[in-house]
Amino acid sequence: MLRFLTAGESHGPGLTIIVEGIPADLPLLAEDIDRDLARRQVGFGRGGRMSIETDRVTFRGGVRLGRTIGSPIAMTLENRDFKNWEVPMSVSPVDLDDEAVRAQLEAKRITRLRPGHADYPGAVKYGLADVRNILERSSARETASRVAAGAIAKQLLRQFNVHVHSHVVEIGGVGAGESVRPALPTFEEWKDLFERVDQNDLRCHPDLYERLRSRVVEAAKGGYTLGGAVELAAYGEIPVGLGSHVHYDRRIDGLLAGAAMSVHTVKAVEVGIGTAAARETGADVQDEFINAAGEIARTSNHAGGIEGGMTNGQPVLLRAYLKPLPTMRKALRSIDLVSREPFEAHYERSDTCAVPAGGVVCEAMMAIVLAQELQRKLGGDSLGEMLRHAGRTHA
Amino acid sequence: MLRFLTAGESHGPGLTIIVEGIPADLPLLAEDIDRDLARRQVGFGRGGRMSIETDRVTFRGGVRLGRTIGSPIAMTLENRDFKNWEVPMSVSPVDLDDEAVRAQLEAKRITRLRPGHADYPGAVKYGLADVRNILERSSARETASRVAAGAIAKQLLRQFNVHVHSHVVEIGGVGAGESVRPALPTFEEWKDLFERVDQNDLRCHPDLYERLRSRVVEAAKGGYTLGGAVELAAYGEIPVGLGSHVHYDRRIDGLLAGAAMSVHTVKAVEVGIGTAAARETGADVQDEFINAAGEIARTSNHAGGIEGGMTNGQPVLLRAYLKPLPTMRKALRSIDLVSREPFEAHYERSDTCAVPAGGVVCEAMMAIVLAQELQRKLGGDSLGEMLRHAGRTHA
Amino acid sequence: MLRFLTAGESHGPGLTIIVEGIPADLPLLAEDIDRDLARRQVGFGRGGRMSIETDRVTFRGGVRLGRTIGSPIAMTLENRDFKNWEVPMSVSPVDLDDEAVRAQLEAKRITRLRPGHADYPGAVKYGLADVRNILERSSARETASRVAAGAIAKQLLRQFNVHVHSHVVEIGGVGAGESVRPALPTFEEWKDLFERVDQNDLRCHPDLYERLRSRVVEAAKGGYTLGGAVELAAYGEIPVGLGSHVHYDRRIDGLLAGAAMSVHTVKAVEVGIGTAAARETGADVQDEFINAAGEIARTSNHAGGIEGGMTNGQPVLLRAYLKPLPTMRKALRSIDLVSREPFEAHYERSDTCAVPAGGVVCEAMMAIVLAQELQRKLGGDSLGEMLRHAGRTHA
Amino acid sequence: MLRFLTAGESHGPGLTIIVEGIPADLPLLAEDIDRDLARRQVGFGRGGRMSIETDRVTFRGGVRLGRTIGSPIAMTLENRDFKNWEVPMSVSPVDLDDEAVRAQLEAKRITRLRPGHADYPGAVKYGLADVRNILERSSARETASRVAAGAIAKQLLRQFNVHVHSHVVEIGGVGAGESVRPALPTFEEWKDLFERVDQNDLRCHPDLYERLRSRVVEAAKGGYTLGGAVELAAYGEIPVGLGSHVHYDRRIDGLLAGAAMSVHTVKAVEVGIGTAAARETGADVQDEFINAAGEIARTSNHAGGIEGGMTNGQPVLLRAYLKPLPTMRKALRSIDLVSREPFEAHYERSDTCAVPAGGVVCEAMMAIVLAQELQRKLGGDSLGEMLRHAGRTHA
Repeated sequence: MLRFLTAGESHGPGLTIIVEGIPADLPLLAEDIDRDLARRQVGFGRGGRMSIETDRVTFRGGVRLGRTIGSPIAMTLENRDFKNWEVPMSVSPVDLDDEAVRAQLEAKRITRLRPGHADYPGAVKYGLADVRNILERSSARETASRVAAGAIAKQLLRQFNVHVHSHVVEIGGVGAGESVRPALPTFEEWKDLFERVDQNDLRCHPDLYERLRSRVVEAAKGGYTLGGAVELAAYGEIPVGLGSHVHYDRRIDGLLAGAAMSVHTVKAVEVGIGTAAARETGADVQDEFINAAGEIARTSNHAGGIEGGMTNGQPVLLRAYLKPLPTMRKALRSIDLVSREPFEAHYERSDTCAVPAGGVVCEAMMAIVLAQELQRKLGGDSLGEMLRHAGRTHA
Repeated sequence: MLRFLTAGESHGPGLTIIVEGIPADLPLLAEDIDRDLARRQVGFGRGGRMSIETDRVTFRGGVRLGRTIGSPIAMTLENRDFKNWEVPMSVSPVDLDDEAVRAQLEAKRITRLRPGHADYPGAVKYGLADVRNILERSSARETASRVAAGAIAKQLLRQFNVHVHSHVVEIGGVGAGESVRPALPTFEEWKDLFERVDQNDLRCHPDLYERLRSRVVEAAKGGYTLGGAVELAAYGEIPVGLGSHVHYDRRIDGLLAGAAMSVHTVKAVEVGIGTAAARETGADVQDEFINAAGEIARTSNHAGGIEGGMTNGQPVLLRAYLKPLPTMRKALRSIDLVSREPFEAHYERSDTCAVPAGGVVCEAMMAIVLAQELQRKLGGDSLGEMLRHAGRTHA
Repeated sequence: MLRFLTAGESHGPGLTIIVEGIPADLPLLAEDIDRDLARRQVGFGRGGRMSIETDRVTFRGGVRLGRTIGSPIAMTLENRDFKNWEVPMSVSPVDLDDEAVRAQLEAKRITRLRPGHADYPGAVKYGLADVRNILERSSARETASRVAAGAIAKQLLRQFNVHVHSHVVEIGGVGAGESVRPALPTFEEWKDLFERVDQNDLRCHPDLYERLRSRVVEAAKGGYTLGGAVELAAYGEIPVGLGSHVHYDRRIDGLLAGAAMSVHTVKAVEVGIGTAAARETGADVQDEFINAAGEIARTSNHAGGIEGGMTNGQPVLLRAYLKPLPTMRKALRSIDLVSREPFEAHYERSDTCAVPAGGVVCEAMMAIVLAQELQRKLGGDSLGEMLRHAGRTHA
Repeated sequence: MLRFLTAGESHGPGLTIIVEGIPADLPLLAEDIDRDLARRQVGFGRGGRMSIETDRVTFRGGVRLGRTIGSPIAMTLENRDFKNWEVPMSVSPVDLDDEAVRAQLEAKRITRLRPGHADYPGAVKYGLADVRNILERSSARETASRVAAGAIAKQLLRQFNVHVHSHVVEIGGVGAGESVRPALPTFEEWKDLFERVDQNDLRCHPDLYERLRSRVVEAAKGGYTLGGAVELAAYGEIPVGLGSHVHYDRRIDGLLAGAAMSVHTVKAVEVGIGTAAARETGADVQDEFINAAGEIARTSNHAGGIEGGMTNGQPVLLRAYLKPLPTMRKALRSIDLVSREPFEAHYERSDTCAVPAGGVVCEAMMAIVLAQELQRKLGGDSLGEMLRHAGRTHA
């Protein structure tokens, strides 16, 4: 079953990802990964650093002639900017007798705590006085690794006609409480929605675009950052019974929510109608069953495709809410970790809004959980064997 | 490190829980568990079945003379009503040639799918035609097991002056958007709040009680069910640096959210100000640092005590939103799993609102995650060793 | 996938076992478990305590009407002797003001370390001054729990015509280096061998019985204990490709050896010809392939059915070597944990040889690993689904 | 706690390793890894390929200025020979219309099964017709990854004065049953032994060297391969109580044996005196306690430093037995996977004896398990915190 580890600091040599447990014979090209890496980099309102990072993955194992071979898959993503960081981010000790070297180190040393970041708890936890040792890994750069791993999960799901996608549904409060898609989209409607979403730089429904864009422009002018919300959907032929009601740690809503909440800046996760369910009456939030030409069907999907901790065959729907980026032009009060002196909080980058990128990361996490549960259900060591177990002969 | 498995069906012989990885020499009495089991059973608006279940735990291992000995802890909870279910819930085969036996089985056989329950996905997943095989385990009865395991986690946390508690903050929409507690409660204020909360049968702030109660009474009269929301708080001496920013699956917000979302009927989880964070500007949602008499302090706790996937020493705050119970007096359209005939959905029990109980279950899950992370941080095989590692000599 | 936890002290109320991850609809009776529990209790040369423990399992969950339902399976085994231990093994605090109670506690208190037992490292690790807190759990009594869990694994494997069994091949040096079975037994020959093995109280090949028995009689007279070796075999339709070469922790030889070495008194584990392989030349230890009527076949099974960390379709063969029981009539030098005074080592029980029982425990561990790997290969939530994935319609 | 994944094929771009869970502030240089990589490459009787692989690790994350920072550690090992394999081992699809390309692929395609390798079970498991897809990963090349991960574990253990080392004790039967070291070596004697061992190309005690070397020379002349045995020792200040008796999967003998048996060609593992224990009487195999100037001490170490599944403070001793390499000059009968035609088995490389290298790999696995258990005991996120928990101020 898919498991993965990732490594790499934001200004270090690059990212490294190993994904173990993918079946053999899955078609897999670097382009399949790079497409999502590029989608993660899109985003109106993102600052300059993104352009440095045009991410391209290199396979170092587990893939041969365009197909997986059952072995662990290794991927690297180079940091093209590393040449400017070779001294302060050197893996080996540097010559501290060299004044120029010392100056470079000192220039990149950080002791001023940024509120809302890992800086303070990280420095205390790991007993490190240079906060750079923390922020290099806590940086959102890490999420590119997850997107790479998630792209492999998506490629596996796709063979079973399961698709995972997201769209931005609100930014800075704009869009909140509105509905931008059909209540029960058909497969074609989902597909169409997401094709259109991927055509704009806010990754939202075209009807929302102008209003969200104005909100971001306004914030950029005001020198502050904005958060927002994304809807995540898995649609297509969702198998009935991924996850399980039998043990608390097998419930797929818990697994999905945990995965989504682990994404940087996510502060709330809803399944289906989420918080609204808590305010409706029991009769209104359930999804009635009907007999549709002999098949069991539903008249709504308030549950977000999950009942009793299992997928019920309807699209799986989550919402993730992301707080504004904690780094910002307008300074915040903070203190110095070492001197305990107050100061105005450290300013590192200039993105106004990273919600579109956050949605792509959340997609990756969702795809990983779904792929794991699909593997648990189907077993199988090769794509062919998985398809046979699923009673399918092709995707 | 604490891990646990639970077993038992709602109308079977009882529940069984094994908790492995608790340090030796922790004082532990059945009363420590029973107290939380009783709190789970409290709840204005709960129907008749609860009274049957006055839960009392029996230790079967891992505890000697009132203290743990490092061995796995086994607990059982008897189902006193089992005598009425001995035939349909028999573990062994029954005599199908006996007409009375067949009739008892048939009387308890279920094929009518209840919307909002595990019935449909469970029956499909496990290939079982009698839905009773699913609902017996998917029942909320299972959560008593979690409360028992969680009570042990709480007992461990308490030795480090970490306390986990909850209160109901909204029911059926009433209370939404309101604040019932100080913005940054002191230890004494938290303690006082939760003492008062535990004195009423809705487990809410006294100021909310009358309004919430009226809402439940109204629903009971109307024959429908209500959901709501609970706030979960871990307070006291929260260590800095539980969880970690270094790997996605070690972030404590993900672990906590996953644990909370795995609780029956929970459909949304927020950390700190949650969805509100997505609608504020960056400058407004972060928690500024100040130097308070030489100590690093904060002026707010919007982050809910978590930054960069780690605890930051402030109280850890979550909100969980629970949908109304899916079983209800007012029927829903559904169909029969076998015949595919439409019908009005099965009616099993009469609770109007289970939000107070849900809060106690969420507390248990929160305590389990925090205890695990505390163990990861401190190591140690006995309470004494853990305390020494923490630089403490007593609780 | 099968996972399990066990709890219970040797003189406590009894043992508790929870097995999670067993597919639904597997036929399962208490007799299926009790049969192996009884086999574990067999053994010429075992002392008096065994007769107390005529083990009978009680299901408390996960089984309904003689079949599993997908839920976790809970089992208990009562300790009928507990009535004699209610004070010293009380889970709750006892009245220390009562002199009779204090005397009972003191009588069962142990501070004298027994060489070869968990006594010393356990007492140090858990910081406990009464060694009883350690030996109650480190006792071989715990292995009954494993046998119970393993019996469920065997029942699952049996549906796929995979059978796990063992026989004693040497005791106290007698039998070492001899061969008591055909080099490449047919299915019928394996079956026949193990039927005959189970008919004698040393669980060995009839041809060995008299010599092994004499050795045990001699040791009993001499007041010392004996170890020995068991061969473990999984035979029938062993699937090709359980385990994997792709990652170190997926190699089935490692998993099997780890499981076997975790059994009390086991000090060595061999796969196939084991240590002999290290002394032969490369040409002699490999198993050549031949084409047998169009099928790939082998001329030997030196590898014990495992190549590259995977099953190769031949019977899986392991040997486990068990040291003599460390408790014995003839005393050993030791010291007191508290006073540090020397003494002659504590004498607790009188078994001369526990190798036959050890073999049954090793079988259980082997069956558990094989069942887990079969589940990983086949997936499936019900027996029917697993069989379909395996291309089988019945066992 | 230390966990790791590895990836990479034998003739692919190189190996990739990610080690997660190492505390911050551990001094770590590439040389610390390369030293063990070089030790793995030593070995009288090894063929030509080794010289290609002068392994040098590159850190890509988790290490800064010569110290760990708590983040996952990524390492790569380049395959300098990859330039000769770029077509047949290409990760991307190649141009099959190009005849030269097709010829290169075909030249490296393998369908002839080698007995004793992963070839057959791997090809069946993963449903792949070109055995190269299997052997590229099942190759012993993979073990370099483990040595790299293990070198980090050793570096951590060293801070606590725990050292893991190995020596070859028999090859092709020579040395079997002999003793080459003091019965209870002092720290200085262990250190001295291993320094001398590392000075010869068979990694054995100097007294054994000439006889083992003659055996290998003889085999090389005869065109066959040889296995042998290594003794593994962890010595220094071994903490009492690593592992636990309380649950089967926490027993350190099981964990260590599983880790050792997962190493290529290992077919038997012994703890302490191992199989000999099964042939002695109970009074002879236990290690008596004595009071040595107020300290608890032992008169022997038959148990190999493990009692009740826990370390007892004595050196931890294992033996691993490795079969001869299955590839050899003298051919074996085999068949073709596709045509089912018989042939003489494929010949890939020319090492006569890989036991010295195998010992280094086993060391790595042993160090990893010990480091994990040390972390479980001590907790801690930085080296300083771990040392404090251990009551140490420096290594």
